Amino acid sequence: MTEQVFYLPKGYRYAGVNCGIRPNSKKLDFALVVSDLPATAAGVYTQNLNCGAPVVYDRERTPCKGIRVVATDSGCANACTGKTGLFNARKMAEYAGEAVGASGDETLVMSTGVIGVQLPMRQIAQGAEKAAAKLGPAYHDFEKAATAIMTTDTKLKVVSRQIQLPTGTVVRLAAMCKGAAMIGPNMATMLATIVTDAALEPQDAQKALFDAVQDTFNCVSVEGHTSTSDTCILLANGAANPNPLAGEDLKAFAAALLEMCQELAPMIPNDGEGVSHLITIDVVGAPDRESAKLMAQTVANDALVKTAICGADPNWGRIVSATGRCGVKYDPAKVSLKVNGFLLYENGAPVDFNKEEVSNSIRNNRNVTFELFFQEGDGKIRFWTSDLTTEYVHLNADYTT
Amino acid sequence: MTEQVFYLPKGYRYAGVNCGIRPNSKKLDFALVVSDLPATAAGVYTQNLNCGAPVVYDRERTPCKGIRVVATDSGCANACTGKTGLFNARKMAEYAGEAVGASGDETLVMSTGVIGVQLPMRQIAQGAEKAAAKLGPAYHDFEKAATAIMTTDTKLKVVSRQIQLPTGTVVRLAAMCKGAAMIGPNMATMLATIVTDAALEPQDAQKALFDAVQDTFNCVSVEGHTSTSDTCILLANGAANPNPLAGEDLKAFAAALLEMCQELAPMIPNDGEGVSHLITIDVVGAPDRESAKLMAQTVANDALVKTAICGADPNWGRIVSATGRCGVKYDPAKVSLKVNGFLLYENGAPVDFNKEEVSNSIRNNRNVTFELFFQEGDGKIRFWTSDLTTEYVHLNADYTT
Repeated sequence: MTEQVFYLPKGYRYAGVNCGIRPNSKKLDFALVVSDLPATAAGVYTQNLNCGAPVVYDRERTPCKGIRVVATDSGCANACTGKTGLFNARKMAEYAGEAVGASGDETLVMSTGVIGVQLPMRQIAQGAEKAAAKLGPAYHDFEKAATAIMTTDTKLKVVSRQIQLPTGTVVRLAAMCKGAAMIGPNMATMLATIVTDAALEPQDAQKALFDAVQDTFNCVSVEGHTSTSDTCILLANGAANPNPLAGEDLKAFAAALLEMCQELAPMIPNDGEGVSHLITIDVVGAPDRESAKLMAQTVANDALVKTAICGADPNWGRIVSATGRCGVKYDPAKVSLKVNGFLLYENGAPVDFNKEEVSNSIRNNRNVTFELFFQEGDGKIRFWTSDLTTEYVHLNADYTT
Repeated sequence: MTEQVFYLPKGYRYAGVNCGIRPNSKKLDFALVVSDLPATAAGVYTQNLNCGAPVVYDRERTPCKGIRVVATDSGCANACTGKTGLFNARKMAEYAGEAVGASGDETLVMSTGVIGVQLPMRQIAQGAEKAAAKLGPAYHDFEKAATAIMTTDTKLKVVSRQIQLPTGTVVRLAAMCKGAAMIGPNMATMLATIVTDAALEPQDAQKALFDAVQDTFNCVSVEGHTSTSDTCILLANGAANPNPLAGEDLKAFAAALLEMCQELAPMIPNDGEGVSHLITIDVVGAPDRESAKLMAQTVANDALVKTAICGADPNWGRIVSATGRCGVKYDPAKVSLKVNGFLLYENGAPVDFNKEEVSNSIRNNRNVTFELFFQEGDGKIRFWTSDLTTEYVHLNADYTT
């Protein structure tokens, strides 16, 4: 990823700094994304009932106008932290807002890291000051912010788009995200900040973001643990053109947002802890979209399926059996399955296949595809997950002690 | 386990033999349980839509009177095998029935092992003949049958009871089971055969079995994969007293059956592949029983919880977060958690605790307890699961190839 091909929306500045949330670590752990103009903000959040304090704080506010700042720390999730946690989330917003000449009410917050530990507020205050002093509009500033929100991620996860809208305006979108469900030893939850210089009404921003997330960030999984902290924020500041998008322009924007999230979402399971394969699951012919998603998700979270792929074992019975246990009703005699394009199961019965050939195909490709065919309706979905390796267990067996 | 303390019901004979379902294996792989008298039979089966052919065969028949034989093979699950599989399940019942002078209609069948492979019928026919020639009423015969149904189980799983019913009759119950969900590299599904010399009407047998299974075999999990083949069969032959139980006698019998299953069920996750801890999860104060079960089950199947226990890591945030993601509504500010008796989380906020002490307690005890307290209602459940170890991944990463 180089600056040359990365499109940054106008009117934003970024910073990522180390403020010492983890003792003796130099890792960047505090990020600011600042809009020069008050921006429309939308948010989509975890459905976990024990959600983090930052989720409570942001959810009360979005969708809205007038947001200037998104402040994120990595290392402490501020989740399961009771009333003190809520107080600290508000305080973090105030520190970050004030550091850049805005208010707490103009600031949204995100936190990721270990659950059940209170935010170290002295470090958060220092991080806000330090980051405010380093804000810049360039790609390397954006990259620092994107690095600061990472926990156990091994790769930067950023994408961008520049599009000309049907009525002529050129707008840009850029996004950074981190983590994958709760895969990491650091409780690496999924966070994303998306910025654009288009102008959007709050309800339009919310709808576009919600729709994009349904087919992307809500279709990735590592072990199926919806974290306490999952948050996806969209800021739209209108720096390219202050008139809120409508009609065909709004549609084109929503399409670009979706496409960008489609590029970003699979990066999460692909960078999961100890992952050796990214698995893309296509379900077609399900009774409806919801059923398709439930079946894909059940396959995606199945330890037996995931260990088989880790071992390049074309043990397709586990995939078929996983769809059968999820509660969706279908005719088992009309199910077929392809793995990496090889037909292994057709209309409810096994197909003769060359095990070695299929096994080699899995072993030699990081990207593995499952195609599950039903004959019930037009429900379909694409879902992404990772395999399950001994490395995952090692990394997750011993974190807080 | 010795014959002295094991109570065998009257009027049953057992055998376990090797018939060569797996090439070059001497493992016992074919079991017969034969009742001298026609017995009442009840069955509880997997809810997996892609259920095995033996499940289809048995489910059509139970509850009923007149069953003489339960035949079980280990090594081939006869699941996802289409019409050929259904034909073979019926054929297996006929072979087994005829070998002992009964008919296919007097025979129930169970199969466990790899999915998607047709039953080797020549071996099954040989197994039936061979087992019929070895039938015997003693504990060592029972133990051979119990051994023959095992796949990757490392320990025999058998229990028995003798009770005097309120009206004076003494009856005996004995049970054998194998496996745990789909944990094993051999698709080690859960199978159980329970025999008693009490007499039961089919509907009473069905109700007693169903009720016992709800709180026992339906409350164990290793990775949450409801297999294609889970089957629990109860035979009641009336050899102790031909009059069907009623009233207080029936209640006493049901209580003994439940108690026996409570002893048997945790043996399954405790013998899971690569397991180093048996985790007992108690949920109390949930809105209702169903909610309690959903929360316990979500915790039980959570890879992050299971890896943490494997590593003796008291990372309680993962447990609390798992209950929050399962869809049950509750007040997060009224949740408390104990692990091995240590209070770690109280009314929605972390409690100071000695991490080393709790970690040592997990490390040094194979049995780990979670107690989750809610303040919503009187819903409660006890659920059993295992931890997740690198050994589990090793064993499951490479089976069919």
